[in-house]
Amino acid sequence: MNRYNFLIRRSWSRLTCALNQYSRHYSKILSGDSEPPPESWKSMEGLVRCAANHVPLSPIGFLERSAKAYRDNTSLVYGCLRYTWGQTHQRCLKVASALTDHLGISPGDVVATFSYNLPEIYELHFAVPMAGAVLCTLNARHDSAMVSTLLRHSEAKVIFVDHQLLEIARGALDLLSQVTNKTTPPILVVLTDDSETSPSPTVPSNAHEYKDLLSMGSDKFETRRPNSEWDPISINYTSGRAELFCTTSCPKAVVYSHRGAYLNSLATVLLHGMGQMPVYLWTVPMFHCNGWCLPWGSAAQGATNICIKKVSPKAIFDNISLHKVTHMGTVPTVLNRIVNSSTSDRKPLPHKVEVLTGGSPPPPQVLAKMEEMGFRMNHIYGLTETYGPGTNCVWKPEWDSLPLEEWYRIKSRQGLHHLGLVDVDVKDPVTMESVPPDGKTIGEVMFRGNTVMSGYLKDLKATQEAFDGGWFRSGDLGVKHEDNYIQIKDRKKDIIISGGENISSVEVEIVLYSHEAVLEAAVVGRPDDHWGETPCAFVTLKDGFEHASGEEIIRFCRCRLPHYMAPKSVVFGELPKTSTGKIQKFILRERAKAMGSLS
Amino acid sequence: MNRYNFLIRRSWSRLTCALNQYSRHYSKILSGDSEPPPESWKSMEGLVRCAANHVPLSPIGFLERSAKAYRDNTSLVYGCLRYTWGQTHQRCLKVASALTDHLGISPGDVVATFSYNLPEIYELHFAVPMAGAVLCTLNARHDSAMVSTLLRHSEAKVIFVDHQLLEIARGALDLLSQVTNKTTPPILVVLTDDSETSPSPTVPSNAHEYKDLLSMGSDKFETRRPNSEWDPISINYTSGRAELFCTTSCPKAVVYSHRGAYLNSLATVLLHGMGQMPVYLWTVPMFHCNGWCLPWGSAAQGATNICIKKVSPKAIFDNISLHKVTHMGTVPTVLNRIVNSSTSDRKPLPHKVEVLTGGSPPPPQVLAKMEEMGFRMNHIYGLTETYGPGTNCVWKPEWDSLPLEEWYRIKSRQGLHHLGLVDVDVKDPVTMESVPPDGKTIGEVMFRGNTVMSGYLKDLKATQEAFDGGWFRSGDLGVKHEDNYIQIKDRKKDIIISGGENISSVEVEIVLYSHEAVLEAAVVGRPDDHWGETPCAFVTLKDGFEHASGEEIIRFCRCRLPHYMAPKSVVFGELPKTSTGKIQKFILRERAKAMGSLS
Repeated sequence: MNRYNFLIRRSWSRLTCALNQYSRHYSKILSGDSEPPPESWKSMEGLVRCAANHVPLSPIGFLERSAKAYRDNTSLVYGCLRYTWGQTHQRCLKVASALTDHLGISPGDVVATFSYNLPEIYELHFAVPMAGAVLCTLNARHDSAMVSTLLRHSEAKVIFVDHQLLEIARGALDLLSQVTNKTTPPILVVLTDDSETSPSPTVPSNAHEYKDLLSMGSDKFETRRPNSEWDPISINYTSGRAELFCTTSCPKAVVYSHRGAYLNSLATVLLHGMGQMPVYLWTVPMFHCNGWCLPWGSAAQGATNICIKKVSPKAIFDNISLHKVTHMGTVPTVLNRIVNSSTSDRKPLPHKVEVLTGGSPPPPQVLAKMEEMGFRMNHIYGLTETYGPGTNCVWKPEWDSLPLEEWYRIKSRQGLHHLGLVDVDVKDPVTMESVPPDGKTIGEVMFRGNTVMSGYLKDLKATQEAFDGGWFRSGDLGVKHEDNYIQIKDRKKDIIISGGENISSVEVEIVLYSHEAVLEAAVVGRPDDHWGETPCAFVTLKDGFEHASGEEIIRFCRCRLPHYMAPKSVVFGELPKTSTGKIQKFILRERAKAMGSLS
Repeated sequence: MNRYNFLIRRSWSRLTCALNQYSRHYSKILSGDSEPPPESWKSMEGLVRCAANHVPLSPIGFLERSAKAYRDNTSLVYGCLRYTWGQTHQRCLKVASALTDHLGISPGDVVATFSYNLPEIYELHFAVPMAGAVLCTLNARHDSAMVSTLLRHSEAKVIFVDHQLLEIARGALDLLSQVTNKTTPPILVVLTDDSETSPSPTVPSNAHEYKDLLSMGSDKFETRRPNSEWDPISINYTSGRAELFCTTSCPKAVVYSHRGAYLNSLATVLLHGMGQMPVYLWTVPMFHCNGWCLPWGSAAQGATNICIKKVSPKAIFDNISLHKVTHMGTVPTVLNRIVNSSTSDRKPLPHKVEVLTGGSPPPPQVLAKMEEMGFRMNHIYGLTETYGPGTNCVWKPEWDSLPLEEWYRIKSRQGLHHLGLVDVDVKDPVTMESVPPDGKTIGEVMFRGNTVMSGYLKDLKATQEAFDGGWFRSGDLGVKHEDNYIQIKDRKKDIIISGGENISSVEVEIVLYSHEAVLEAAVVGRPDDHWGETPCAFVTLKDGFEHASGEEIIRFCRCRLPHYMAPKSVVFGELPKTSTGKIQKFILRERAKAMGSLS
């Protein structure tokens, strides 16, 4: 009977209070905003920027929406653990609440993690920003000394530690207490593995457990949205420049904003062709570029996130088959393990599986073999400074009918900027002129757009150097093809200079990967009294090909490359890698240096 | 030999000029930005906002990217006309150049269009903003008086006119010259139909033709990007409030920003499940909410846009079949024509066709019939003030197995906000409290987020009223279900009050649509001496059902609705509609009023 009663009430209230209410309300609207409207509005009377039409962009909203849209659908699977989006949202609210009310975290504080891809790390990608804090995900491969350095640099107030890494973390905290005068070291929170039946590890008496936070916190917590979309959401220490730490102790802490994280999440979802409710398999560590922004992006689309304990070809095939995985991100070294896996580790794919691959240029042969196995390969490129993915090799239908050789040559190009950026170009770093699109002229790859970092924390000089000229200078060398697709030739520091000639290590590696015996390869410069440097190949052989000799491999390269580009020495053995699967060339350079001159 | 020469040059230049260059460069970087960094950066030394990491969001970038990514792929088809993305980009550059260099358009100027969905209207969605100007798309159904009023209100400097509408436009310009003291009326540019073989219409001597602009303009034009992402990109006069024009001459000019257009384009692409290179059929007029932002969104994904001369079920089926259409946006009245089309007009669908429908609440029966025919229906809701699409009924897999009755009842809900908004809620408009999620309590639907308009041009009071309380008040009445999905019950002004009871016209219409004889129906209040108002149904019957009587229909409703909600009178005949297919209830209300009291 009285369903519309309020309408009558409203009309009444409007009629009687209109004048005095209006003035009060409107002044509130107009003063509520921190940024003044743009110049152009001066000639456009009637426009207002207020809470109704201006909310700082943030990926936090993705989770809030998914908690409604996909409430009872699975958000995350880890072993026998399984959560729904409704539960994930509630768990994140509780952790944000505990951080705020029990661990004393204030907006702008840094909260660190030191862990593999546990479900808790997924949750912290929301819970930490929801507390107004900044997430700093440390590489799980670091040692105590490095963790200690980075905790000091980031000034983290809390550190969440994977129980498997507890000893390293405790070592780091010990070191930290020795070198700093700080009276309060970061609070330690231990992540025990709830999916395991084995007894929990011994948690230090001064530490918390994640589950304690969940029971302390309240899911009635009011999420702290950023005041500005430019507020930092996370800090990522670069892995690409990790070697710098070893020599100069100069960590580069890349800062991401809420705005950039929102935009890169959506751009990555779009380039990955992620429709609603995909099933996403995590092989990329979330501590690397915040997992290419896909903890946030997968929430936007209501994905089911499959976290696994150990990345192996067998685990990948098992999980694809079990959970009907639709999308997966993987670095080239893992691809290499997949294509070289034993048939007993494989399972038939339930359907085409979309694979993003990036982190280092993937060998074309590996891309081709993955496609043969039923994966659809989407080659992305970017740096920690570009929130991970920045370009992809946007595929053109006319390429489908190309001969295989041509097909995979194109597929391994880095391509074009995604929808979150404005441009990626290859430029002469001195004149800032674009190189001609001839596929030959080398220049430096540069980025512009809203998914470029806010800067390097506490290193204004490095930030300014990186942004010199109004573009982000990647340090990667590349060419631009006729169709404007870019292709990386090498990292600046990986170029080998031999007798005045510049050699792209990537080009030599591509030839090495086409040798039937080669599982993995990396080429660096070896000091040479005569040539300055000569190319030295480090090679891992496939099982059953142990008979291959260095001479044979050198001969193979000489048939396929200009003489000066072919390796002069070959070293067999396992290659050192970062946790994200990148081959650590600086270690190989050290080894080559130790070998001395060839002549 | 000298491929990496510049590297040596660079090292040299860096070495020698580093110090003095740095200071110059960095001061440029730091001063180049108009907005100061946020408060939170004060505690985070090292961050910089500059051209490298801050470019105003704008959909212009979508076209620039597609001109590279999809250069040789078809961008647009219209009859026998066909362009590629490379050509579309070049044509837009030329038109932007001609607007700037030959027609004297400056940044911030308004450029109007008055046309059906010609290819040129698609291009002007880019060319006008690329000239820094603001696009104002007038409804092709307007008469000279209305066009004249809106040209005066918008102060348009140029008007692009469909050759079919030339007489109306000339009438408008004549009227304009009578009422204004302006010495320079808008420049007239005629859009001739290049796909037709018939002779061109007579173009007035003081007018241009679009093709002249193309030959005048240069594709070397340097696109003017907005200075701020809050700069206006377009003006849309509301159709929902068009009736106001008739009585109060108070047009509401909704202003969209580059930022909002960018965000709504991507959000709509995502909710529409538009992957790369879809084929999009235009039945929604681009002059309505800028075609739900899909001229921009379709460019983001490199779509092929199919424009058609006349929207009819036959044309829709023919084009779907011919061009293998994958996606389509359609208003409910067109859906109704599709499901009631004769079998001779139909063709088998080549695959599932994704259909967005919105503009008014679609009758559940129509949604069900469309799904039976092989379309996948995605129900969206929004207003001109929310850039068109603002919510959709995000589908849950568990609903697939529901009984049909239940299935289409849920499908016709308006659902949840999309990824560009922060929230849509149903609130008591006085207390601003959210209504309980009980599916019963009625409140006003309100929006918050970055895809809410910048305001009503030259009507600050109306803007402030719409944003009162920090939410955009839609004027629509709805409920919230247990799962937080919203459902519209009626427009505020369409509610019928009968004997103190409030009747949702939408609920009565849903029952009418379930009657086998009813093709279309609309219910309004008819003045009544005793009850105040009684529900009066205006009904169009299906072919072959002309025998149906008013009494029979009233009886049908009384079996399915509370007595007071059933229509007391039924009027047969065609229903008046807006160009976007919305039934014009204000005309029906006038008719009902003219009928006088029933008792």
